[in-house]
Amino acid sequence: MILVSVDDHLVEPPHMFDAHIPDRYRDRAPKVIQSDDGSDVWVFNDAVIPNIGLNAVAGRPKEEYGIEPTAFDEIREGCWNIDERVKDMNAGGVLGSMCFPSFPAFSGRLFAAADDKDLALAVVRAYNDWHVDEWCGSYPGRFIPMGLPVLWDPQLAADEVRRLASKGVHSLTFTENPATLGYPSFHDPHWDPLWKAVCDEDVVLSIHLGSSGKLAVTANDAPIDVMITLQPMNICAAAADLLWSRVLKEFPSIRIALSEGGTGWIPYFLDRLDRTYDMHHLWTGQDFGDRLPSEVFREHFLTCFIADPIGIKLRHDIGIDNIAWECDYPHSDSSWPTAPEELAAVASGVSDEDLNKIGHENAMRWYAFDPFVHRAKSDCTVAALRAEAAGHDVSIRAFDKGRFEKQVGIDLGELVPKATA
Amino acid sequence: MILVSVDDHLVEPPHMFDAHIPDRYRDRAPKVIQSDDGSDVWVFNDAVIPNIGLNAVAGRPKEEYGIEPTAFDEIREGCWNIDERVKDMNAGGVLGSMCFPSFPAFSGRLFAAADDKDLALAVVRAYNDWHVDEWCGSYPGRFIPMGLPVLWDPQLAADEVRRLASKGVHSLTFTENPATLGYPSFHDPHWDPLWKAVCDEDVVLSIHLGSSGKLAVTANDAPIDVMITLQPMNICAAAADLLWSRVLKEFPSIRIALSEGGTGWIPYFLDRLDRTYDMHHLWTGQDFGDRLPSEVFREHFLTCFIADPIGIKLRHDIGIDNIAWECDYPHSDSSWPTAPEELAAVASGVSDEDLNKIGHENAMRWYAFDPFVHRAKSDCTVAALRAEAAGHDVSIRAFDKGRFEKQVGIDLGELVPKATA
Repeated sequence: MILVSVDDHLVEPPHMFDAHIPDRYRDRAPKVIQSDDGSDVWVFNDAVIPNIGLNAVAGRPKEEYGIEPTAFDEIREGCWNIDERVKDMNAGGVLGSMCFPSFPAFSGRLFAAADDKDLALAVVRAYNDWHVDEWCGSYPGRFIPMGLPVLWDPQLAADEVRRLASKGVHSLTFTENPATLGYPSFHDPHWDPLWKAVCDEDVVLSIHLGSSGKLAVTANDAPIDVMITLQPMNICAAAADLLWSRVLKEFPSIRIALSEGGTGWIPYFLDRLDRTYDMHHLWTGQDFGDRLPSEVFREHFLTCFIADPIGIKLRHDIGIDNIAWECDYPHSDSSWPTAPEELAAVASGVSDEDLNKIGHENAMRWYAFDPFVHRAKSDCTVAALRAEAAGHDVSIRAFDKGRFEKQVGIDLGELVPKATA
Repeated sequence: MILVSVDDHLVEPPHMFDAHIPDRYRDRAPKVIQSDDGSDVWVFNDAVIPNIGLNAVAGRPKEEYGIEPTAFDEIREGCWNIDERVKDMNAGGVLGSMCFPSFPAFSGRLFAAADDKDLALAVVRAYNDWHVDEWCGSYPGRFIPMGLPVLWDPQLAADEVRRLASKGVHSLTFTENPATLGYPSFHDPHWDPLWKAVCDEDVVLSIHLGSSGKLAVTANDAPIDVMITLQPMNICAAAADLLWSRVLKEFPSIRIALSEGGTGWIPYFLDRLDRTYDMHHLWTGQDFGDRLPSEVFREHFLTCFIADPIGIKLRHDIGIDNIAWECDYPHSDSSWPTAPEELAAVASGVSDEDLNKIGHENAMRWYAFDPFVHRAKSDCTVAALRAEAAGHDVSIRAFDKGRFEKQVGIDLGELVPKATA
């Protein structure tokens, strides 16, 4: 088994901008400061971002998942230190990884909020250079590089996509709904320069759940379990929005990944698309020529899952070339470091051919990522990587049970630690 | 094949209140008037409801689906005339039907908006008496009666549930989210008197997609196909909201139907519930004892579908006792009068036992509905009913093609009429 994950997260380290921001913006670049209460926060453009690594709970017991880490010494070092990250990947059997941002938000809207757009552009470019050259560049063949967009200007966004493409970047993190962020929607020609650039440069729009800036909340007093449950399927709104939009018709080579969106709901969604087309296109005016919407979907969308037994069962209804595995390290939906075991259990009875596509080949093809240039394929397996990681500590961190019981407000009883590799 | 539909719609006829509203409220009861432009509208409490039968397009060609009928002479008589409705049911092979309201909205919020709550209560009760005694009562064994709720007062709502139960009513149409209608959410004890009544009286809450009063709209300029596609899955928010709520824990016999919600997405949703529970319950405090959320779901929720090949394929992942067929007459998602052929195509290879459950047995059990008391089972089949309907006209209505082309703004070209039974 070889695993390339198309959805992980990094926590930006404090000095990330030092080597990349032009001198004239150095004082105004985002900075980490320590608050009086001991927490670490990013500050930029008068905004304070208290959650340096929202939900970065890898290696913690589940009882602690509700407590957001607020300081670098509370999170696993692999979240922000590239050397430790690669060790954690090895211990988890993960060959390749695509890492979404944390403090700027998935589509970099924190940077876009700056009034000084020259500063904002310098920060986006510095972020991207750090991500590509330092984070991914330190371990060639281990990371799928991904750019942050210039959200406020489609032409500058296109320029940045082309600049990054010249460095080998074939992924752009983007919002699942620009309209909810206050920008023109997917239905507005506003974005055309960006769509042209991603098509020209063979770049996938990677839209992560939650990137609309709107959580799926039913009521203010609803238990948080409701929101957690609904988050992945929420991305079906983005899939429908784009599927029926002019974007796919005007830019026939555009491609979109539904990051962390899950897969088990996709076959129903495809049926629903086809039925909607059959019943309604004569009056709505939609026209896909001699193709069905489900066929159009498979040409344009990559679906992504962590562990999804129904998605595996329905893999051929989804499209075996349209599914990619993800680890979601270091978030609470991840099963790191035992994700390979979880996938193996879910994929019991799946042919090697299918499992190779889902585990790494689809990710490689969609993102033009070839780790085997850098590393013999036989050294890329889960077993080979774990052998390299021998001795690396993946145990659950010691924690102060009394303190957490007090914070969580429940009696944890006797802990049952999750088995580790 | 025997078919009982758990989701159809009626269009309220003009004189429905005449025999049921107390004299002192007669002048202020809802009335149909004809506007200057020739359209029929309901008026009540200073509100004008222009769409007497939103989307009541049965028997029309698909090219016309976008044009809402605005007058009684534009809609099929079976929408509002009970004798014609039964003929249409026979022609469509449908034995039994549960009919949702049109002009008061799914949860009767039009009536709830009246300042004079005594008037509002009189109108709700008159509506329910008409529905139970006239609409359903005219043809015993052909309709599952359903009450409108008293939305503004949980105790009065409970009283009305009990009053209706004494007339044999085991279904209450309700909103998928009271919070979006301005009432306390499902998580507030406010509703407890109503929940107690529906449990005591063995009444199913039938929550229909769209009953939150919020459409699934991604952007103001999104094509309408986006909204049409997303509507059914939108009800997963209600399912999650209720599943994690105190309602199921405090009222363990409460039951909910996800009307027109579709079924193909349910297995993914159940996996998601179980994973959310596994990963997060230790800090969120959810506790289902020794059961999984998916098991709890199957005890409480009925899922409903029109034609859903993935739902049929996954029927045992959903729960074969938790699926009921629906016709959705006279809305545009319905395949009336060829719905039986559509179901047969989708259910090819399904055992008779499973098809009986999905086609009528589950509906009968969930809604305590027994048509066979009134009619020999052999006279209830699709074929037997259609034989009774021989000669009944189900052809597509003639229409003024030029007028509609002008309204729709597209050239319809040569029409290809849908095959009729």
